Amino acid sequence: MENQYETIWKELGLNLENHAGLLGVLSDAYTNIYMAQKNRPKGMEYFDFVVSEIHSLRIKEIYEAKESGRPIVGAFCIYVPEEIVLAVDGVCIGLCAGAEVGSEEAEKFIPRNTCALIKGFMGFKLSGLCPYVELTDLIVGETTCDGKKKAYEIFNEITKKVYVMEIPNMKSPKGRELWESEVIRFREKMEALSGKRITVEGLQKGMALVNAKRKALQRLSALRNADPAPISGLDALLVNQVSFYDDPARFTRMTNELCDELEERVKSGSGVAAKGAKRLLVSGSPMAIPNWKLHAIVEGSGAVIVGEEACIGERNFRDMSDENFATVEEAIAKMAGRYLSIDCACFTPNNERLDNINIMAGRLHADGVIHYSLQFCTPYMMEAFKVEKSVDRPFLKIETDYGMEDFGQLKTRVEAFLEII
Amino acid sequence: MENQYETIWKELGLNLENHAGLLGVLSDAYTNIYMAQKNRPKGMEYFDFVVSEIHSLRIKEIYEAKESGRPIVGAFCIYVPEEIVLAVDGVCIGLCAGAEVGSEEAEKFIPRNTCALIKGFMGFKLSGLCPYVELTDLIVGETTCDGKKKAYEIFNEITKKVYVMEIPNMKSPKGRELWESEVIRFREKMEALSGKRITVEGLQKGMALVNAKRKALQRLSALRNADPAPISGLDALLVNQVSFYDDPARFTRMTNELCDELEERVKSGSGVAAKGAKRLLVSGSPMAIPNWKLHAIVEGSGAVIVGEEACIGERNFRDMSDENFATVEEAIAKMAGRYLSIDCACFTPNNERLDNINIMAGRLHADGVIHYSLQFCTPYMMEAFKVEKSVDRPFLKIETDYGMEDFGQLKTRVEAFLEII
Repeated sequence: MENQYETIWKELGLNLENHAGLLGVLSDAYTNIYMAQKNRPKGMEYFDFVVSEIHSLRIKEIYEAKESGRPIVGAFCIYVPEEIVLAVDGVCIGLCAGAEVGSEEAEKFIPRNTCALIKGFMGFKLSGLCPYVELTDLIVGETTCDGKKKAYEIFNEITKKVYVMEIPNMKSPKGRELWESEVIRFREKMEALSGKRITVEGLQKGMALVNAKRKALQRLSALRNADPAPISGLDALLVNQVSFYDDPARFTRMTNELCDELEERVKSGSGVAAKGAKRLLVSGSPMAIPNWKLHAIVEGSGAVIVGEEACIGERNFRDMSDENFATVEEAIAKMAGRYLSIDCACFTPNNERLDNINIMAGRLHADGVIHYSLQFCTPYMMEAFKVEKSVDRPFLKIETDYGMEDFGQLKTRVEAFLEII
Repeated sequence: MENQYETIWKELGLNLENHAGLLGVLSDAYTNIYMAQKNRPKGMEYFDFVVSEIHSLRIKEIYEAKESGRPIVGAFCIYVPEEIVLAVDGVCIGLCAGAEVGSEEAEKFIPRNTCALIKGFMGFKLSGLCPYVELTDLIVGETTCDGKKKAYEIFNEITKKVYVMEIPNMKSPKGRELWESEVIRFREKMEALSGKRITVEGLQKGMALVNAKRKALQRLSALRNADPAPISGLDALLVNQVSFYDDPARFTRMTNELCDELEERVKSGSGVAAKGAKRLLVSGSPMAIPNWKLHAIVEGSGAVIVGEEACIGERNFRDMSDENFATVEEAIAKMAGRYLSIDCACFTPNNERLDNINIMAGRLHADGVIHYSLQFCTPYMMEAFKVEKSVDRPFLKIETDYGMEDFGQLKTRVEAFLEII
């Protein structure tokens, strides 16, 4: 099997030696962080397998999908409407951005003071370590922050396949109109890319797939209300991370199977932490795979993370797309509205997020909220001020990157926080 | 006289002791940097006077304007249409943001990793050192960068008078529509604030004032083409900085008088530097008063700065408003188009700027281009990559803040750059 994957990696132009090193580091980190957990649900075995095959089996699947003529679309943001990609039988995947890789290469193109996620996607590409980006026919960027907005221009010079959707800065009537026109433009782009017309049936199929995925993730989120928590924050985070890479139908089935098991746990009162263990909600910047740093610190200190108010988390699945439409135009208008309800810090103001954090913390019986920002992630770093003022329970603000230099310091801060709550 | 100003400062709630300290530091810096220059045009005496009275006579004028019922509007961006403020007989002023003041206070509200300009305006307000902000009836923000966009939300909690105009991220037809609707909304806001209707006559008056100011600044810019340069970069920068504070009619008159004198200099072949002195174009982030750091370093090293491709500089006056209109609606549509032609790095892409830099460098006979970014100013820091690739002459990239810690290091880099060109 190994040789088969190596053939693909070679064909995609990866740096085989460094890639082998990366997979080794990933595997070690996974063993240390994930496999060391106690009393994990059996349903996590599937996700362990997915991670072990993240650049292998899944890449082969996407490679074959591409060979069969399906368009491959990469993205870095939950504002990219996956329904439209699926409506032309495309594959929509998140691109590598969660590890400190190729920083030196990246800094030849972008400033040192750039958030780890952006440096990550530049670094992965420039050092030939992301098979996903090589398989894409189109990379869909957006204007959610200055860093990504401007880095996409450079990323396009490197890859020649970046397409940018404009997200407005305000949710005004004109902003909504602009965004809807962007969704229409994206529909046309996908039609041109695939050579297929987007039909009501195609959109129904795409929406059903994405909504089912969202519903499974909502189910998982709701099960985390229970005390004791039936699943660790680390494992739930991983499921959310995998939702951006996996085949949507299979992902939904396996997540629902996991949830069946978790329901049994809740009924029987068993869980991953002792009943009464301190429960935390994490809120802020996205955590792309394999960014497990904060969860590892918090859960390594005896608390349990019960929710992620983040793009890789609740913001991705809070709202369903309305499947009740008669025309493509109606579907797109409704879909545009659904996406614009996402409470991203790119909007000014973004007060819905303040409400959503308190609602979520209440539902999950969180004892405290940790606000997590990637360093140089200005929208979330700035919004933390308002979040701190509005959160109705103990609050800790953390700014960090992907490096491990501040691991000890963060652990000390988290432990001190756990002591006061 | 002193007592009269102190009465106003006290009434505005300034911190009198610290304010006296600030004026002392400003005066010392001005003496060291400006008064030490040789062969300055006589016309600069007016601008010396303006700086010496920047928190005194001008504040008294604005205070009296406010007392007489004229609305006072503060802004931090050249996208705020001054014509509309003037059309209701308002006063439009730039707010204090050019010095490292109150950083400790500011960092209670915004992240440490915020650009010096944003930290500056927060710091000036929080430490009670900006009489301008206290005199405003309205502070007009915009969405040109993540930092300002999100900081305005916090600034509004502090001042209760921030109004934000949305600038789109792209210059698409829908983006243009959105921006035009924002200019219309601003017109309504100014009508509500002033209790006056905006009329064709009012707009004609406002536009004539602003266009005359732009024309004077264009004239100044064109005179800097000459070798030897008839005016230093420091002095020309100051004139541009003062254009955001001064009474527009008086400013225009005094700038034109200065230009008359510079014309004589050009004719007689006299200037501030020797003929053949190295000529540099500075391009990038805005330099709010009293940010004279880069100009002081470059000109202290024997070169002369011949242009500022910046918001405090060329971008502010490159395009005139079209005074040929029959209705308010027509005027606003044309004005919106004029503003959207500004090549701010907030747009993606912003390729016009690349062309404009080369056109400007050519016209000014620049021997090299220095790209200047404030640290954490993501749009300009990121765009520097494309600028470097497209600039057709020697190029130096600088990132700095308002502090003096890197003065020596920057001087060494600038001198090394001057040696190779």
